[in-house]
Amino acid sequence: MLSTQNNAFVENLDIENLYDITGAIKIVENRLSSIVEECDDFIKVLLRKFLLSGKKIRPKLVLLSGLCFSAMNDEMINSAVVAEVIHTASLIHDDIIDKSDYRRNMPTVNSLLGNHAAVLAGDFLFAKAFEILSKNKLYKQMEYVVTAIQELCAGEMLQARDLFNIKVSEDHYFERISKKTASLLSACCKAGAQSSNASVDEIKKMGEYGIFIGYAFQIIDDLLDVMGKKEMIGKPLAQDIEQGNLTLPFIYLLQNPRIKDKYMTKLKDKTITKDIKLELINDLEQSGIITEVYQKATYFVQKAKEALDGIPDSVYKTMLMRLSDEVLYRTF
Amino acid sequence: MLSTQNNAFVENLDIENLYDITGAIKIVENRLSSIVEECDDFIKVLLRKFLLSGKKIRPKLVLLSGLCFSAMNDEMINSAVVAEVIHTASLIHDDIIDKSDYRRNMPTVNSLLGNHAAVLAGDFLFAKAFEILSKNKLYKQMEYVVTAIQELCAGEMLQARDLFNIKVSEDHYFERISKKTASLLSACCKAGAQSSNASVDEIKKMGEYGIFIGYAFQIIDDLLDVMGKKEMIGKPLAQDIEQGNLTLPFIYLLQNPRIKDKYMTKLKDKTITKDIKLELINDLEQSGIITEVYQKATYFVQKAKEALDGIPDSVYKTMLMRLSDEVLYRTF
Repeated sequence: MLSTQNNAFVENLDIENLYDITGAIKIVENRLSSIVEECDDFIKVLLRKFLLSGKKIRPKLVLLSGLCFSAMNDEMINSAVVAEVIHTASLIHDDIIDKSDYRRNMPTVNSLLGNHAAVLAGDFLFAKAFEILSKNKLYKQMEYVVTAIQELCAGEMLQARDLFNIKVSEDHYFERISKKTASLLSACCKAGAQSSNASVDEIKKMGEYGIFIGYAFQIIDDLLDVMGKKEMIGKPLAQDIEQGNLTLPFIYLLQNPRIKDKYMTKLKDKTITKDIKLELINDLEQSGIITEVYQKATYFVQKAKEALDGIPDSVYKTMLMRLSDEVLYRTF
Repeated sequence: MLSTQNNAFVENLDIENLYDITGAIKIVENRLSSIVEECDDFIKVLLRKFLLSGKKIRPKLVLLSGLCFSAMNDEMINSAVVAEVIHTASLIHDDIIDKSDYRRNMPTVNSLLGNHAAVLAGDFLFAKAFEILSKNKLYKQMEYVVTAIQELCAGEMLQARDLFNIKVSEDHYFERISKKTASLLSACCKAGAQSSNASVDEIKKMGEYGIFIGYAFQIIDDLLDVMGKKEMIGKPLAQDIEQGNLTLPFIYLLQNPRIKDKYMTKLKDKTITKDIKLELINDLEQSGIITEVYQKATYFVQKAKEALDGIPDSVYKTMLMRLSDEVLYRTF
C-alpha cells in the first residue's frame, strides 16, 4: 500500500528542482567530507560512505527552517552539518545497541569493524559536532543539540525497558518516539530558525513543527519496518519486532483482548521466532490497523502544517509543508 | 617493587589533610550524584556507583590548577564536574571496546547490562558534560574538552591498529598515550587555570604540566597492569597484553633481537595464550626493564614539575608537585 502511493507522489514531487537548496546541501556534503578526512584511517573508508549516504533530512530541515526567516548564512550551514553529524553518530551507536548488521543498504560499522570502531566512530563524530558548534559560537544551537542528545539516550533506554512488554501503552510509545526521534528533528528546526535570528515565538513554532513531523516520521518508519521492502528501506524487514520492540501497529493490534491473550504466552520467553513474527504480521495485515496507523501519521503531518500557521509565507515554508507530506509517502 | 615504595610514601603523604580541597571535592561529588538522579532508572543504580567511585584525579587537577591563580569559584567546580563526567563516559565506552568485565573493583556497565546500556550511559554522560559547559558558558573549557575527546578517540584507534604489532615503536607508544591519556589530563589543568582567569602563558604551562603527568600516569598504569595486584588495581592482571596491547615494558623487551625473534612466531596468530603471557611477564621480570620503565615515568614527573617553574608559588602549586610524585608511587 505504502509503496504504490509513494511512487506516484515522488514522480510528481521534486522539491529540490522547484526551489533550489541543492547548492547549500552540496556545501553541507563537502563539509561532511572534510570531517571524514580528519578522522583516523581505521574508520575513514567506512565513515566516508556512511556519513554521506543519508537522505539529509535533518540538514534540509535546518536549512529550510532558517530560510523561512533570512537569506542563507554560514550559521545555517554549520548547524545543518552538525545535525547530520549528530544523527549519524547516533545511528552508529544505535547499531551497536540493536546489534544491526545492515543500514542504508550497506553493512553497519559494528558489523564490519566491530563494536570497538563503532563506539569510537560515534564518539569522534559527537565531539566533532561540538567542535563545530563551539568554534562557531553557535551556543543557542548547542543547547538544542545537548537537550536532543539527552532525550535521544532517554528514548533509547525507554525502548530498551519496554522490549517484549506486551502491555506497553500508546502514551508510552509516544513518549518514546518523542525522545528518540522527534526531539532531534525539533532541535534541527529550532537551530535553523535560531541561525536566522527568528523571534523566540517563531523558534518555538518551528520546534513544534519539528516535533510533529518527528512523530509522523517515526510512525511511518515503524510501518515500513513491517510493510516495506528490504531493498527500499535498506535494512532487514520486521527487525523491530524481532528484537521485541513493539511499535504502534503492534500496540494497536494487542489492544484486541483475543490477540493479546494469544501472544501473552508466546512472548513470555522474550524470543520472537520467525513463525511468531510471520503470525504477528499476518494478524496485523488482516486487522485494518495499518490504515489506522497511517491515519495517525497523517494527523501529525496536519498538526505540523498548522504549527507553521504564524510563520511568514515563503517558498521555503511551502517546501517545509511539502516535506511533511513527503514523510507520509516515503518508502525508505 | 612498586607496592613497597608506595606504602611507605602514602603513609607520609596525605595531601588532602595538609591543604584542604576535600570540601570542594565533596561539592563535585554532590553534583555528580545529582547528574545520576536525572538519568533513566535503567542505568541509574549502576551509574551511581560508577560515577562516584573514581579517584577524582581529574577534578583534583582542575581544582588545584585553578587555585594556583585565584580563590575557589563556581567555574572551577563545574569544570571539575565535567572532567569526571567525561572521564567516566570514556571509561564506560572503553570497557565496551576492551570487552572488559571489571573496573574500579566492580563489574563494568557492559558486563552487567550489555553493550546497549553502556553505549547509552556513555552518550548520556557526554551530553551532560556539554550541557554543564554550555549552560555555564564555559566556552574556552569546552574547546579544551572537545579537543581532548577527539584525541582520546584517535588514541584508542591508534591502539586498536597497533594490537599485536611486535614492531610498534617507542615513539608510536608516546603518540598513543599522549592522545589516549595525557590530552584529557592536560585539558583538565588548562580548564582549571582558565576558570581562574590565568594568563595565556600560564594556561599553556599548566597544559604542559598535564601532558607530562599524563605520560607518567599512563606509564605507571601500564607497569601496574603487569606488576600490580588485582585487588589493588581493580581489574584483572595483564589484561593489556592479553588483548595484544604492547605497552612500554614490552616495547623495551622486544627491542632485544633474541626476544623479538622468539615472540615473532608466537604472536603471529594474534592470540596471546596464558602460557605466552606468563612467559612474557617472566622475561620482563628478568630483563631489568621494569626499572628502566619506572625511570622513564620519573623523568616525566620531573618534566611536569619543571613546567610549573613560572607559576607563582602557593600551597596549591606544592600540591600539584606532590600529586605528580604520587603518580609514581600509586598502586592502583
